[in-house]
Amino acid sequence: MELIYTGKTKNVYVLDDGNYLLKFKDDVTGEDGKFDPGANTVGLTIEGAGKAGLRLTKFFFERLNEKDIPTHYVDANIEKATMKVKPATVFGEGLEVICRYRAVGSFLRRYGKYVVEGQPLDAFMEITLKDDIRQDPPISEDALDMLRILSKEEYSVLKELTKKIGNIVKSELSNKGIELYDIKFEFGRDKKTGEIILIDEISGGNMRAYSDGRYIEPLELERLVLGE
Amino acid sequence: MELIYTGKTKNVYVLDDGNYLLKFKDDVTGEDGKFDPGANTVGLTIEGAGKAGLRLTKFFFERLNEKDIPTHYVDANIEKATMKVKPATVFGEGLEVICRYRAVGSFLRRYGKYVVEGQPLDAFMEITLKDDIRQDPPISEDALDMLRILSKEEYSVLKELTKKIGNIVKSELSNKGIELYDIKFEFGRDKKTGEIILIDEISGGNMRAYSDGRYIEPLELERLVLGE
Repeated sequence: MELIYTGKTKNVYVLDDGNYLLKFKDDVTGEDGKFDPGANTVGLTIEGAGKAGLRLTKFFFERLNEKDIPTHYVDANIEKATMKVKPATVFGEGLEVICRYRAVGSFLRRYGKYVVEGQPLDAFMEITLKDDIRQDPPISEDALDMLRILSKEEYSVLKELTKKIGNIVKSELSNKGIELYDIKFEFGRDKKTGEIILIDEISGGNMRAYSDGRYIEPLELERLVLGE
Repeated sequence: MELIYTGKTKNVYVLDDGNYLLKFKDDVTGEDGKFDPGANTVGLTIEGAGKAGLRLTKFFFERLNEKDIPTHYVDANIEKATMKVKPATVFGEGLEVICRYRAVGSFLRRYGKYVVEGQPLDAFMEITLKDDIRQDPPISEDALDMLRILSKEEYSVLKELTKKIGNIVKSELSNKGIELYDIKFEFGRDKKTGEIILIDEISGGNMRAYSDGRYIEPLELERLVLGE
C-alpha cells in the first residue's frame, strides 16, 4: 500500500485494486489552537477527530449515493479510520467549492460593505483556488475557464451539484435542530469515467454548523447528528 | 457650483445645467512616493498630472464617442483642468472593471500558481469592489447578481463594453509603439436614460503601459500619445 499524498488532515494510499485509501488523522485545521474550517494550517490535534469525521463522512456520502449523486465513496472502516474511494483527478491543482447559507467567514471579510454578518444566503456557491501561499483566492467562472482549470460546462455542473449536496446536508442537519451556515466541498473527475464526482470528506471540519446561535465543534456535531 | 464629492485624484461639482464638472488634481495613486495605478492611496503629487490626465482622457473619450460607445463625456477645458460630464449613478457603491492583456498586478498576485508574470491575456475582464478597507476584493458575476449590485444582463453589457473600449485604447497606444498591459474602467448608469455608460477617466493613472518592456509613467504616456 503506497502512500501517495500527505495532507493536512488525511493521508492517501493506493490500493492493489486501483482504488485509493484515505486515512483520517486527528489533526484539524485552525490557528493558535482554535478550530477554524476556513484555515489553511493544522491548528490542533483532537483525539477521536479522525474517526468522528469519517463517521459523518460515511453517513453523508451514503445519503448522497442513495440519491444518485456521484461521489468517490466506496466504503469505510471506522475502526481503522480509513475510507476506500474511487481514484479521481482534481481540477487544476485543486479547488475549494463553498456553499453558503449565511454571510460569515471569508465571504463576510470580502463583501462586508454589502452584507451584514449572518445575513441569509440562498445556497450561494463560490470557488477558491487551493493555494496556501496566496490565501486561497476566490476565482470567477471566466477566470477558471480562461486558465483552463474548469470549462463553463463543468462550472454549471459543479454549481448544480454543490447546491444539491449542500441542501441535502443542510436538511439532514436541520432534522437534528442544527443550522448549516456554510460548507466546503471538493470535486474531481472520476479517473475511469471522467464524470464529475464529489471527493474528499463531509464532516465538521468542512462546515460551520450552529445550534441556537452557538457554534458546534466537529466532535459534538458528529454526536448530535449520529446520536451517540 | 456645489462640490459634491472629493476623490483621491478628482473633485466633483454639480453645474447649474444639471451636468457634473470633474476637476482633475495633480495627485496620483501610489505608495511611498511611487506611482501605482492599482493603489488605493494618494502616493504623490506630480505637477501637471491633472492636466495631462485630462488631455489623455479627452483624447480617448472623443475616440469612443466617434465609435458610438456610450460615455459620460460632454467636453473638457484643459486650461482649467475640468471636464463636463453627464450625471450618472454607480453600481452599488462603485465597481472597478479591469481589462487585462498581460498577467501582472493583483491578477498575478492571486493566480500566480497558474500563470507566469507577463503572460498574455485576451482582454480578460475582472470586476472588483471599490472598498479601500477590504482592499478592493474581486467579485464574481454570481455574487454581483446575488448582492443586487449588477444583474446578469448588466454584467454581459459591461463585459462587451470593457473589451471594446480596452481594445480601442490598446490599438491607439499600439499606433505609438506602446503596449497596454491592463486598464481599469468605471461604469455607471446615465441618470436620464438609465443606459450603461463609461464614466471617470482614461489616463495614465488607470493603466499600465509599456514600451520595449519599460513601464511608462503617466506624464510620459501623455507626451508619447499626444506627441507634444
